[in-house]
Amino acid sequence: MKKYLQIVYGALLGVLVIVQSATAESEFQKVMQKRGLSEKDALAALKVYNPSGKHDEYYAFVSGGQSGQVMVYGIPSMRILKYIAVFAPEPWQGYGFDTDSKEILRQGNIRGREINWGDTHHPALSESDGKYDGKYLFINDKANARIAVIDLKYFETSQIVVNPIFKSSHGGAFVTPNTDYILESCQYAAPFTNDYYPMEAYEEVYRGGVTFWKFDKKNGKISQQDSFTLELPPYMQDLTDAGKGISDGWAFTNSFNSELYTGGIEKGLPPFEAGCSRNDMDYLHVYNWKKLAELVKDDKNVKVINGHRVIPIEIAVKNNALFLIPENKSPHGVDVNPDGQYIIVSGKLDTHASVYDFKKILKQIENKEFASKDSYGIPILDIKKSLHGQLELGLGHLHNTFGKEDGTIYSSLYVDSQVVKWNYKQLKLLDRTNIHYNVGHLEAMEGKSADPQGEYLIALNKLSIDRFLPVGPLHPQNNQLIDIGGKKMELLVDMPVPLGEPHQAASIRASKIHTEVRYNMGTNSKTLKPHVGKTLAGQERIERKGNHVYIYSTMVRSHINPEHITLNKGDKVTMYITNLERAQDETHGFTIDHHNIHASVEPGESVQLDFVADIEGVFPYYCTEFCSALHIEMLGYMLVKDPNKDYGWIQKTKIKGLSKEELQKEYEKILANNEATNSVIDSLFKFFEDRGYAKYPTVKNLVDDAKDQYTKIDSEREKATKAYNEKNLENAVLFENMVWQYMIKTADSAIRAKDLLVTNLATKKSAGAKKGEEVFHEGGCSGCHVVGRVSSGPDLIGVLKRHRNAEKWVAEYIKNPESKFKEPYMERLIKFFNLKMPNQNMKDEEIKDIIEYFKWIDENADLF
Amino acid sequence: MKKYLQIVYGALLGVLVIVQSATAESEFQKVMQKRGLSEKDALAALKVYNPSGKHDEYYAFVSGGQSGQVMVYGIPSMRILKYIAVFAPEPWQGYGFDTDSKEILRQGNIRGREINWGDTHHPALSESDGKYDGKYLFINDKANARIAVIDLKYFETSQIVVNPIFKSSHGGAFVTPNTDYILESCQYAAPFTNDYYPMEAYEEVYRGGVTFWKFDKKNGKISQQDSFTLELPPYMQDLTDAGKGISDGWAFTNSFNSELYTGGIEKGLPPFEAGCSRNDMDYLHVYNWKKLAELVKDDKNVKVINGHRVIPIEIAVKNNALFLIPENKSPHGVDVNPDGQYIIVSGKLDTHASVYDFKKILKQIENKEFASKDSYGIPILDIKKSLHGQLELGLGHLHNTFGKEDGTIYSSLYVDSQVVKWNYKQLKLLDRTNIHYNVGHLEAMEGKSADPQGEYLIALNKLSIDRFLPVGPLHPQNNQLIDIGGKKMELLVDMPVPLGEPHQAASIRASKIHTEVRYNMGTNSKTLKPHVGKTLAGQERIERKGNHVYIYSTMVRSHINPEHITLNKGDKVTMYITNLERAQDETHGFTIDHHNIHASVEPGESVQLDFVADIEGVFPYYCTEFCSALHIEMLGYMLVKDPNKDYGWIQKTKIKGLSKEELQKEYEKILANNEATNSVIDSLFKFFEDRGYAKYPTVKNLVDDAKDQYTKIDSEREKATKAYNEKNLENAVLFENMVWQYMIKTADSAIRAKDLLVTNLATKKSAGAKKGEEVFHEGGCSGCHVVGRVSSGPDLIGVLKRHRNAEKWVAEYIKNPESKFKEPYMERLIKFFNLKMPNQNMKDEEIKDIIEYFKWIDENADLF
Repeated sequence: MKKYLQIVYGALLGVLVIVQSATAESEFQKVMQKRGLSEKDALAALKVYNPSGKHDEYYAFVSGGQSGQVMVYGIPSMRILKYIAVFAPEPWQGYGFDTDSKEILRQGNIRGREINWGDTHHPALSESDGKYDGKYLFINDKANARIAVIDLKYFETSQIVVNPIFKSSHGGAFVTPNTDYILESCQYAAPFTNDYYPMEAYEEVYRGGVTFWKFDKKNGKISQQDSFTLELPPYMQDLTDAGKGISDGWAFTNSFNSELYTGGIEKGLPPFEAGCSRNDMDYLHVYNWKKLAELVKDDKNVKVINGHRVIPIEIAVKNNALFLIPENKSPHGVDVNPDGQYIIVSGKLDTHASVYDFKKILKQIENKEFASKDSYGIPILDIKKSLHGQLELGLGHLHNTFGKEDGTIYSSLYVDSQVVKWNYKQLKLLDRTNIHYNVGHLEAMEGKSADPQGEYLIALNKLSIDRFLPVGPLHPQNNQLIDIGGKKMELLVDMPVPLGEPHQAASIRASKIHTEVRYNMGTNSKTLKPHVGKTLAGQERIERKGNHVYIYSTMVRSHINPEHITLNKGDKVTMYITNLERAQDETHGFTIDHHNIHASVEPGESVQLDFVADIEGVFPYYCTEFCSALHIEMLGYMLVKDPNKDYGWIQKTKIKGLSKEELQKEYEKILANNEATNSVIDSLFKFFEDRGYAKYPTVKNLVDDAKDQYTKIDSEREKATKAYNEKNLENAVLFENMVWQYMIKTADSAIRAKDLLVTNLATKKSAGAKKGEEVFHEGGCSGCHVVGRVSSGPDLIGVLKRHRNAEKWVAEYIKNPESKFKEPYMERLIKFFNLKMPNQNMKDEEIKDIIEYFKWIDENADLF
Repeated sequence: MKKYLQIVYGALLGVLVIVQSATAESEFQKVMQKRGLSEKDALAALKVYNPSGKHDEYYAFVSGGQSGQVMVYGIPSMRILKYIAVFAPEPWQGYGFDTDSKEILRQGNIRGREINWGDTHHPALSESDGKYDGKYLFINDKANARIAVIDLKYFETSQIVVNPIFKSSHGGAFVTPNTDYILESCQYAAPFTNDYYPMEAYEEVYRGGVTFWKFDKKNGKISQQDSFTLELPPYMQDLTDAGKGISDGWAFTNSFNSELYTGGIEKGLPPFEAGCSRNDMDYLHVYNWKKLAELVKDDKNVKVINGHRVIPIEIAVKNNALFLIPENKSPHGVDVNPDGQYIIVSGKLDTHASVYDFKKILKQIENKEFASKDSYGIPILDIKKSLHGQLELGLGHLHNTFGKEDGTIYSSLYVDSQVVKWNYKQLKLLDRTNIHYNVGHLEAMEGKSADPQGEYLIALNKLSIDRFLPVGPLHPQNNQLIDIGGKKMELLVDMPVPLGEPHQAASIRASKIHTEVRYNMGTNSKTLKPHVGKTLAGQERIERKGNHVYIYSTMVRSHINPEHITLNKGDKVTMYITNLERAQDETHGFTIDHHNIHASVEPGESVQLDFVADIEGVFPYYCTEFCSALHIEMLGYMLVKDPNKDYGWIQKTKIKGLSKEELQKEYEKILANNEATNSVIDSLFKFFEDRGYAKYPTVKNLVDDAKDQYTKIDSEREKATKAYNEKNLENAVLFENMVWQYMIKTADSAIRAKDLLVTNLATKKSAGAKKGEEVFHEGGCSGCHVVGRVSSGPDLIGVLKRHRNAEKWVAEYIKNPESKFKEPYMERLIKFFNLKMPNQNMKDEEIKDIIEYFKWIDENADLF
């Protein structure tokens, strides 16, 4: 039976190692029982778990809702990787706290007023031929009708544009198939100008519309002067999608107020929610953006409002570029299928989804076959002639996302709290699963692109109620991951959203994103050009021009240069900081206490801080990123004098010095210490060279970082020697200390590199040696023995050569240590370590494996 | 063999269901192979995975670093539950965007200046007898020497205090065993006054210290006037811990600049990092806070600086309340063990950890047995006489946390990137594990309390380098979860930190946290008292006092009252908003476009917004939380006139009405619709009553929410009837529409409640019925059949009674549907549904199970 167990277990788990039968089995059993996991749960756990270092398969870019930011997480692990600062200041990233990022953030000012938040809704990835190209992300702000551009090489916001005529915009961002334009539809209708008009002027003056933001893919920027807006009636335009394939050149926007209702609950009238949902039908807006983009070139087709070009309804109608089709009342999502023929409209207050056929629509347009006109003169197509068909899905159908198989679509039902899978071509229900609770948007992988990947689906649920540990009245939202790789949808895992309410997610294969980890030395990360304040080592300086002081500073592990800055109260200060590091992930942060400034300075980056030194006093500044063991010593002082005060009375004190003899002793001590440390570093560098480290990219990165630190030693050594020759022993000691600091930083990277290189180079462990290594650790041997060096116990390299008939001797010793304590060699060892090896009650099989492991160590002795 | 497999598999996974052998096995195998998971990985996956609805065992409260906030996540799932806004404005929570939260945030102003960020470091949980009581959390800001109080009933910041004399503070917050005081130590020494002093005055004028913030546990507030500071030499105080048990009344603070070094790299001097680490020894500060708290009561023991009481060094020394003990150079963490006898000091630049014995320290103090005095006159104790002993741990020892077993401690090694487990009593190394990469703080569960729980350990790693999908030059940090329940530490999972660099975590058992999910109606969440602007339904109004306009408004699904607000340009506006919801998680958000305000209004909460209507125009406002399917219709308009302009020329328009006949038809239609919907709701309510729903708390909550919505129907119906009687058909239709809206919201909760109640009430499924249910879903039956109602296929309740010899008939029909199509009954059905059931190729065993499932359905027919 035991044998069976082993075989079966191996088969079950798909691993080829021989398992430690009873132990491993009962471990699994114990954990599942203890944690109350079913078999289905266990399978889900395996599907979402990433062991250390394993990367996710997809990125999800998720709107950060009212946080104003963008959340990025990995799928399937659902671990949040970053909140990218977009519309709200964010101090960790220095966003809105340093001068360069403020320039981006303040592009979002409206009518001269600072806006410090946003209500982000719909992220859109840049496309080529309707497929995601991984270059840019666009996100809208509903509350302030703005669009931001995020550069996915750096995961930084690079531009914000304000819509000059909309007062609100829910339906953005959506891109055309080659990202020629980013579409942003108005939501709550309002006058396009900035003037007051009473509600009674709603029909006459209030307007909706769609703005076409011209995007230049090469420089990654929206061109505001090349952008324009199509005027639309005040029907409260909602979501939009651009056509693709056969519908390329067209776009589709729905709406929810064909009633032109204007509210008034405070006057005893029914509220908007009732008034806007009275009619059975609202309007799907169908328009030809390629034609509009041609029309806008001619000034006579355009009204200019707030400096922005608007194509009036009548011009669009006259040129056959704008049409309406009825849709079931108060729809929400509108989605064009991957080949562009079908347009699926969600029926928020209707249990049916509607599938429109673009071919049928186009035929009516070409034949000028219109059912009627609306009161603004826009031709209305017949709904029946436009529909491919409808299917009853359930209550509260809001959004759609496409699956990999032809015709497959997934839809969210808000009221029923379900996701349904159906076929929009065959109009057939395929599957249905419950979510928790109340799903809004949903996203199958690349599910809004021309190349949907299926595999996983995220349900962005608005309520979490009882799903997570309670955190007070304001709950997280719940994003649920669903496996859609099989026939049935299977819920995998819940993910609480800790900040803001995400509205929509855009997912993309990880392989499509190509990021940088550092900047060219001295780069302004917002312009990607050399920074005006770029400062290399040795160029640090303070320049005064009248009452404007310019500080050119650098940061490198673990000091800031300069360390003292003395100013007069009232001085304007411009501080440039360059991070001299080349090493990945070696960010430095900078702040001056009490001054409300903060910068995050990534490797190679230069940033600018501007402030007025308007209060007298002493203000420490420091590196705010835990960059090294000596990070806390990475500091300086800004001292602000009042130029009208007399400080002559201040007693000056000096640090109490050591005596000359004491200093000489200190100097010799640190010299010896440095020599010893240096020989360790030498041996590490030799180890790297001897073993062709450069072949292993990650190892090479680490070694390069170590060498980079090491090159800084020479100049410190020089300063120390110079000081010593000038009999300044105090400084000689300190500069040698500085040499040691660089050695420690060198070792920090080098040791990491060595461990990695050893893993790459060592011979393959036999099954026995592998088990032996485990036993060695599990059994507690590694508490005292460290392979490759003497620790609380002797180094075990060569232990099989130190005794006659060594394998037998070692086995006996492990089995019963006491039996050998009287041997003269052992007596010496016990005396040296002041420790006797305990009996760890190893089994014979385990001891055999440990010896296999020792053999493997000896085979690879040169690696330790 | 097959039989063996089933038994073994069941045993392995600890579940008692009979598994579908081959299918489930190969699923496991396939997933592990596909995802490259080892056996060890699979075990870790099971240890951290929470299926939907399963709660975590521990909360971790983690400093949000430079984000200025506090991160909360669950252990072991490592899912982030919330970012609590503390020192930086955060729009999702409305923090810093509504008037009430601004009052909290602005308590943190320094010398009249707004500070909009913080560098949070060390969270501390409130204690009773040294054990966590789950009531409050304290967090410090290093950059601006501030402490914030967070109320864990609501997870909201309730107070911020500014240190009146420190310019920087790393070492906070730490509490005394009954939270009498919160300790905050200075970091970068500076003058206590706000005056300029040159660096040369460092020894004479610059000072460090420890502030004792008096905390009143009953009202949850720090009393600033009862707080005081102990003056200390400018040794750059670092971390602190308060004594407990036998060391209760004492506290311990280490430091790293016994050199009194003042930097000057820009003058060619060695930087701080070298100068501060020259000496072999720094100082552990030992002081008796209980004695200091007595001393401070007497004015003659006190200097008042910036309105704050300071006990000078000489007073503390004279009263035997302050001592120094040497510690190995540049230490970092200092931690008092659970019973208070041992103080463990980390040797940042030393490979040894030092364990001090408080009994030995106290003996020297009692005997006035001092080795020497420092230049400030503070007695220095002998290190050897104070030490219990030292142990070599490795490079870069920074922090410690205690395990459950007596004497067990875990320490972080920054340079070695390791966590070591050792025994501080026996001075013995026990285990060592690698982390990725460079660990700072670490936290075993409740590991800094008098009652450590062991189980899990979090390593807060500063670098993540290659661990996660790349996100540009600024990387996430990495918090790694380690299982410490066994003899060996086992790494479980990596967690990227997406925002800010967390410094320390404080963990607590979930059972110790007791939160609220709603406020008493009309509460100010910042004072927890009734809000001055509390507004109940029917009390909504707009009051003008000169040019100050007061708006008393309410929000409830899905409308805002009022919907129109007309103002004059220049009006000051105070807007009060009350969320009338009682339902858990039914938050509403509020913003007015272009006005940079945002409020998050939790159920029962009232908030205040203040702004000036300083630009003319039309500005929509809306609910920013996705609160219902009609959330997007929850809007209103603020209209701002220029009082100096003449708007007489504006054309007023009216919505085009329907004809009287059309309206009558609409009215009858909606009446019928509402009647139908109401009968569904009636049947739901009857279902709840008949089945004693009130016994199930979660169900009861949902039903209460449904009823709450339902009560709103009467007044709408009344308005509709009144309008109808007054021949205002337009409004009659709209108000009936409003009735329907409330019905939908009622149904939303009620349906959820029913599902849950059914789960609670249904008879237990047999193994066969369970399998049958799975097959029913997996096999696609549920695509057309919905139990309890007619869908694309007939309802299957009673299917076993509809045919003679029904079990046989149904089995045959599933096996071969075509065989029955010609039966007259089936012909009618096929005609009715316009669909023939496909052959799903079920196996006999599966069909048998499905019939078992049908039997279970019939047993519970009354539940569907």
